[in-house]
Amino acid sequence: MELPESLLNVIDQLSKIPGVGDKTATRQTLILAKWSADDLNAFGDAMKNLANLKACVDCGMYSDLDYCEICSNSERKESKSVCVVENVTDCLAIERSGNYEGLYHILGGVLNPLMGVGPDELKIDSFVKRVRGLEVKNVILAVNPSVEGDATCSYIKQVLPSDVEVDRIGFGIPMGGSLEYLDTMTIAKALENKKKM
Amino acid sequence: MELPESLLNVIDQLSKIPGVGDKTATRQTLILAKWSADDLNAFGDAMKNLANLKACVDCGMYSDLDYCEICSNSERKESKSVCVVENVTDCLAIERSGNYEGLYHILGGVLNPLMGVGPDELKIDSFVKRVRGLEVKNVILAVNPSVEGDATCSYIKQVLPSDVEVDRIGFGIPMGGSLEYLDTMTIAKALENKKKM
Ligand SMILES: [Zn+2]
Ligand SMILES: [Zn+2]
Repeated sequence: MELPESLLNVIDQLSKIPGVGDKTATRQTLILAKWSADDLNAFGDAMKNLANLKACVDCGMYSDLDYCEICSNSERKESKSVCVVENVTDCLAIERSGNYEGLYHILGGVLNPLMGVGPDELKIDSFVKRVRGLEVKNVILAVNPSVEGDATCSYIKQVLPSDVEVDRIGFGIPMGGSLEYLDTMTIAKALENKKKM
Repeated sequence: MELPESLLNVIDQLSKIPGVGDKTATRQTLILAKWSADDLNAFGDAMKNLANLKACVDCGMYSDLDYCEICSNSERKESKSVCVVENVTDCLAIERSGNYEGLYHILGGVLNPLMGVGPDELKIDSFVKRVRGLEVKNVILAVNPSVEGDATCSYIKQVLPSDVEVDRIGFGIPMGGSLEYLDTMTIAKALENKKKM
């Protein structure tokens, strides 16, 4: 037998989420089918309301308002520090680490001329204007290591005012990592980034 | 930083699904945040529409209409056979096996006087009426083995017309199962259900 359309629709939607297979989607939908109409409506509304999510005008972080919580925080503004990341999840990972108290700039990618991603797509112009306007002293490039990431960092360093201190986050062996299982590039970077004890 | 409310709401809803932890819900929500407004609305509508799902008037199976696809199928009606299961997912499991072509009756549980589940809650009266009305010849009790399941089967056998053939599905070693890892009850049942080769 075919399942009723209303079940199939939810299975279909859930299985569009990467990592959710048909079997999981079916199991989850049969659980959802037991929810009350109120609970299903709340779920549906939450999903629809996600379409209203905005990007912060200043940094590009997700926000329900024009400016995100971080950019609206005067203490963070006074830090005179901006951390540049590729995307929202990188920003969230740094926030989770609890080791950074400044502002962010979310590029939304890295320079990739072959894919049509240039400085305009990453809004680097408005980023530089923001750095000037806020009198930022320190920019941390938390861009992931890759050919494109490296080029992006070089480009940003070049277009920033020369009196801004520009750092790139350190690369090496991750905590808990083991040389035995790491790729040669990481090991090479770790050796390059050795520090006096 | 706190995530925007619109993201937190979806994370909250997704993590209400058993088996979906906070971390998975967050990861999935950040993926959903990239969906178009149209796609999010379709997802939301599917979820809300699930509240309109009905139980088949005859058998209790999920259905968008008053009568499910199985009960509306005249060939299945003519089989004069009803398979009694505890819940919708048991019915779906049997359908998946492809070895049964008759009707179903979904109890919605098993007799459990201590939990207030009696014959009325399982709609056994209307089941017996249906068996008479359809002139059913064969009832298969595909109720899971447990003290309550066994009592439920005995009760149903007792209230069905005496000319109806009542079978209970076989218990024993599952295909691919190994005696070494099975519980003693299953092994006892398997020995009891031995068949001449
Ligand atoms: Zn912001
Ligand atoms: Zn039905």
